[in-house]
Amino acid sequence: MPRYRLTLEYDGRAFVGWQRQDNGPSVQAALEAAIRKFCGESATVHAAGRTDSGVHALGQVVHVDLVKEAPTDTVRDALNAHLRPAPVAVLDAAAAAPDFHARFSAIERRYRYRIVNRRAPLALDIGRAWHVSVPLDAAAMHGAAQLLVGNHDFTSFRAAECQAKSPVKTLDALDVERIGDEITIATRARSFLHHQVRNMVGTLKLVGEGKWAADDVAAALAARDRAKSGPTAPAEGLYLVAVRYP
Amino acid sequence: MPRYRLTLEYDGRAFVGWQRQDNGPSVQAALEAAIRKFCGESATVHAAGRTDSGVHALGQVVHVDLVKEAPTDTVRDALNAHLRPAPVAVLDAAAAAPDFHARFSAIERRYRYRIVNRRAPLALDIGRAWHVSVPLDAAAMHGAAQLLVGNHDFTSFRAAECQAKSPVKTLDALDVERIGDEITIATRARSFLHHQVRNMVGTLKLVGEGKWAADDVAAALAARDRAKSGPTAPAEGLYLVAVRYP
Repeated sequence: MPRYRLTLEYDGRAFVGWQRQDNGPSVQAALEAAIRKFCGESATVHAAGRTDSGVHALGQVVHVDLVKEAPTDTVRDALNAHLRPAPVAVLDAAAAAPDFHARFSAIERRYRYRIVNRRAPLALDIGRAWHVSVPLDAAAMHGAAQLLVGNHDFTSFRAAECQAKSPVKTLDALDVERIGDEITIATRARSFLHHQVRNMVGTLKLVGEGKWAADDVAAALAARDRAKSGPTAPAEGLYLVAVRYP
Repeated sequence: MPRYRLTLEYDGRAFVGWQRQDNGPSVQAALEAAIRKFCGESATVHAAGRTDSGVHALGQVVHVDLVKEAPTDTVRDALNAHLRPAPVAVLDAAAAAPDFHARFSAIERRYRYRIVNRRAPLALDIGRAWHVSVPLDAAAMHGAAQLLVGNHDFTSFRAAECQAKSPVKTLDALDVERIGDEITIATRARSFLHHQVRNMVGTLKLVGEGKWAADDVAAALAARDRAKSGPTAPAEGLYLVAVRYP
């Protein structure tokens, strides 16, 4: 029974999130339906990152076991045909080892968060970036972000419903860069807590608008209390960029 | 009666094009309706480039005469409020000289054309790029593109319905660049013929897939016959990036 590894792009606006749920269309359900149409199998797909509603993916990785053996290009093309018109694309399909697990084998996840920082509302990027109209100091945000890099207890940046066993994570990078009106926050770690990226971005936004100093970010981290950090940034600016495996 | 110069971003998918028409919503009609709501005036807006249906703008420039005098920031913010929920944003409003004309004063227009060149269909860029699944040689496209740069009779790249007095134009740049799966074609000129950019892109795509050599592009240009060049590339990949004035 071959295991396939698939790399996915999707537009998070169309879905209640990665995970199959009763309250609306999920990426997982769309993909599992396409698999049923392709080979008649009711397989369960496992993803590296269970993205929330509105969160986009440029390189989500999933695995699935199928009885059907087919060339990987055929798997990719057939699933793409059956996924239409859902805004999900299988960028790549590959054969995976039997012990490969999209979630548990991952050694690094990369996310990007997009802020469009200008007075005018969004026209082309509605639902694809966070529109912040107050001027943000990206250099100050980047400086404060460095206080979060490293091995820390991220309880202050963890959603109440987070199911991770431990709030201690190692954040490998959190870089804030402005190009014109756009501020990009690029981050990577072996894994993240639920809402961790969006909570870090919401906190850095307070620094960007001058409401918080870098010291306040350090104090929020040290407090180990979700109430002590900033609000959760909206889902629409977040992209799961890539997942790395050994 | 002050003249205002406005810079616009819009998502071309929502409109039948720039120009007011009977067959559906236009950017011009949306903007003129917002102006009526703002100050009660039935003003006509003039644009630098009359973009077709599906063509996007990152920096369209328009001008309008209003009886109402208001701070330019107020004009921008009020028009943006009244434009909602249409995907049009006024990025900037400025006072313009009485003899400024968005179309006739322009000395340079910049367009960008986006191709996503990969087997998988588009998920995040549906309607915002041309999906080409056959592999394209961007370097060959760039080489052939240089044969179009300069002062030429562009009859072969001109739409039948083009209203320009002369088919002779000076093309200042036509650069093709690949970054990963994305091929960007950046071009600038004082002005373009109707469909000229899309017809040049459609022709360069033939070069990219190896069906045409650079010589065929030169021959198509020399033929001064629309039937001798390639098909018109789809509107969805085209962006009016910026317009320059003296």
